[in-house]
Amino acid sequence: MATVKLIDYEEAGPEVRAVYDDIMATRKSDWVNNFWKALAVDPALLRRTWESVKQVMAPGALDPLTKEMIYVAVSATNGCGYCINSHTAVARAKGMNDAMLAEVLAVVGMANETNRLVQGFQVELDAVFADGGRKT
Amino acid sequence: MATVKLIDYEEAGPEVRAVYDDIMATRKSDWVNNFWKALAVDPALLRRTWESVKQVMAPGALDPLTKEMIYVAVSATNGCGYCINSHTAVARAKGMNDAMLAEVLAVVGMANETNRLVQGFQVELDAVFADGGRKT
Amino acid sequence: MATVKLIDYEEAGPEVRAVYDDIMATRKSDWVNNFWKALAVDPALLRRTWESVKQVMAPGALDPLTKEMIYVAVSATNGCGYCINSHTAVARAKGMNDAMLAEVLAVVGMANETNRLVQGFQVELDAVFADGGRKT
Amino acid sequence: MATVKLIDYEEAGPEVRAVYDDIMATRKSDWVNNFWKALAVDPALLRRTWESVKQVMAPGALDPLTKEMIYVAVSATNGCGYCINSHTAVARAKGMNDAMLAEVLAVVGMANETNRLVQGFQVELDAVFADGGRKT
Amino acid sequence: MATVKLIDYEEAGPEVRAVYDDIMATRKSDWVNNFWKALAVDPALLRRTWESVKQVMAPGALDPLTKEMIYVAVSATNGCGYCINSHTAVARAKGMNDAMLAEVLAVVGMANETNRLVQGFQVELDAVFADGGRKT
Amino acid sequence: MATVKLIDYEEAGPEVRAVYDDIMATRKSDWVNNFWKALAVDPALLRRTWESVKQVMAPGALDPLTKEMIYVAVSATNGCGYCINSHTAVARAKGMNDAMLAEVLAVVGMANETNRLVQGFQVELDAVFADGGRKT
Repeated sequence: MATVKLIDYEEAGPEVRAVYDDIMATRKSDWVNNFWKALAVDPALLRRTWESVKQVMAPGALDPLTKEMIYVAVSATNGCGYCINSHTAVARAKGMNDAMLAEVLAVVGMANETNRLVQGFQVELDAVFADGGRKT
Repeated sequence: MATVKLIDYEEAGPEVRAVYDDIMATRKSDWVNNFWKALAVDPALLRRTWESVKQVMAPGALDPLTKEMIYVAVSATNGCGYCINSHTAVARAKGMNDAMLAEVLAVVGMANETNRLVQGFQVELDAVFADGGRKT
Repeated sequence: MATVKLIDYEEAGPEVRAVYDDIMATRKSDWVNNFWKALAVDPALLRRTWESVKQVMAPGALDPLTKEMIYVAVSATNGCGYCINSHTAVARAKGMNDAMLAEVLAVVGMANETNRLVQGFQVELDAVFADGGRKT
Repeated sequence: MATVKLIDYEEAGPEVRAVYDDIMATRKSDWVNNFWKALAVDPALLRRTWESVKQVMAPGALDPLTKEMIYVAVSATNGCGYCINSHTAVARAKGMNDAMLAEVLAVVGMANETNRLVQGFQVELDAVFADGGRKT
Repeated sequence: MATVKLIDYEEAGPEVRAVYDDIMATRKSDWVNNFWKALAVDPALLRRTWESVKQVMAPGALDPLTKEMIYVAVSATNGCGYCINSHTAVARAKGMNDAMLAEVLAVVGMANETNRLVQGFQVELDAVFADGGRKT
Repeated sequence: MATVKLIDYEEAGPEVRAVYDDIMATRKSDWVNNFWKALAVDPALLRRTWESVKQVMAPGALDPLTKEMIYVAVSATNGCGYCINSHTAVARAKGMNDAMLAEVLAVVGMANETNRLVQGFQVELDAVFADGGRKT
């Protein structure tokens, strides 16, 4: 169980309830997952994190499904079980099927393998890749 | 510089040249980057890694640009400078602009932040997220 | 369960018992936690690790509570559940309350986020920060 | 060099300048470091990250120096050179001396060592440490 | 449980069965572990990963037991419970005893400690270690 | 450059000189590498770390070359450039050739890939691998 008490809506103060209400309204759902109930131990942390996640995951230059798949990729690299399960579930709800998940993780596996080969051999950067290929 | 000698085409044996030729043919380019020249110290490692990368990064359930952005996301999480620069360059060549790169990294940053909050508070998984939301 | 047999006091040899005795005397407690019972598979590893932990976590230029909070911060970054729970418990026993824990993890989350933004964008170091600001 | 163009004050638009102005006012300084100049490629990312850092690093249940030392500890664990140098410099400016830095890193080293020993031996959690020692 | 359905031999198609058959023949065993049953969601991923693992873990310049111990060392550093348990079990079957496991993990712990001390202090490389000591 | 002043033999106090002398005597060399010169900022940290490294890397159930290769494997996984270069150089001095280095890193790459596939799919442990295959 969590190292802080999870705070349910009923026992939450007005600051926390306001965030929970916005989470549910934004997601068109009637519940809040445990992550937010743990952050509620610190209402400022809860609000800041939710506002950030809401802003970052909104449609922009990338669509929300691509963003969720990147979230899964990072969480798999970090080995965070809660994060992998919850973001895989959200990505599925947004349209990711088994074939797409398998390809996300195939890239994750390959990137983790080649990252360590590059580092292990201490390969120096090719001049053409300097600055990540920007031309400005 | 690398911890093994980088092997140029001119000094490479036939096994290594065959892989280099396939890399250049696949990419429609006339050069091979340093990563492959380091792996060439072990021709079997070179061939296996190239065959895997070629297969994983080919179009499939996900398009090649999405795959490159996931590669960048993992490499940023692992802090591999060569990998970040080279895959950012390739992603740019495939159509990623500054706005898309900034959103990739914004998601990477947010996922790394929330991964550690989840782990730091040891949040238990909500039942609805079990098995990553699969229904089978 | 652990990949080696945990060794209880009763079945331990004299080398292991001597370390267990010192752990209990130092902590003014009457038991030894599982971490040490696993290390006891190799008495030299047990002794060396305990002597190091005892030395590092003792009061010095930093107070013991600050050291425990840094331990929690690193363990959260590494996602080690045992380590997070045990060092959070010890930090609580030394005076860390929920508000302090939330701030520790807020910093951990922020550092993990900005570490990846810096790496993802490959930001070059400002001259003024060279050598970590030392003036010698 | 960075994978995006660093944006100086002179060439920045009003959204970016407003954040730069707040950074300088908050820090009572007359310059902005490269990290923010990279984030400026995406003004929303710049603003959100700065607002978060400002909030998280402000005095609260923990003092600003303790927070900076935790930032250094996480950055050392992640191996982010820019982050280590810049936050070490800021921590020094807030009062951290060599002896304190050495103790921060001694704890970081010890935590990274024991985290991996715990994981490598797959040690099961002692019941007394469940929930990080909370009593609620 | 896994985020994809594990595929048993009975329900597998011919591509998957062919890989399962080769796994069992290579290992002289009559079952396949869950890792492969998860990868079977994507037969190309399954085949590629198995062919790679078979090639990498075969006897070569290093013997198979040394390779398994390196696998355990990396898995302990990454905190992957499944990987630690399964590769520890395989290493034991190949001759690793408790004393050897303890030394593997002692080196893993020490390397993780000193890696972070080096990074935390940002130690510059001695000239004699450039290129990992190669003389070519 | 390092975030603390590197301390040369000539300017070191007697505690530090005693450790430097032991390093040189143990290694039968006439110099000390930068890592130790950074740790010398805290003589207790220097002594403790050196005593631990000397003990851990000595011949035991594993030979010193195998231990060095495990050190390289962990350092490659963590991306510590100093550590990779220095331990690769030491391993070469102890007999590791290019073919062996390539196999070490091939295993490191494969382990990092499959670690993330296991975590990404959240594969549950097979009963036979429980406790890492120990029978006690």
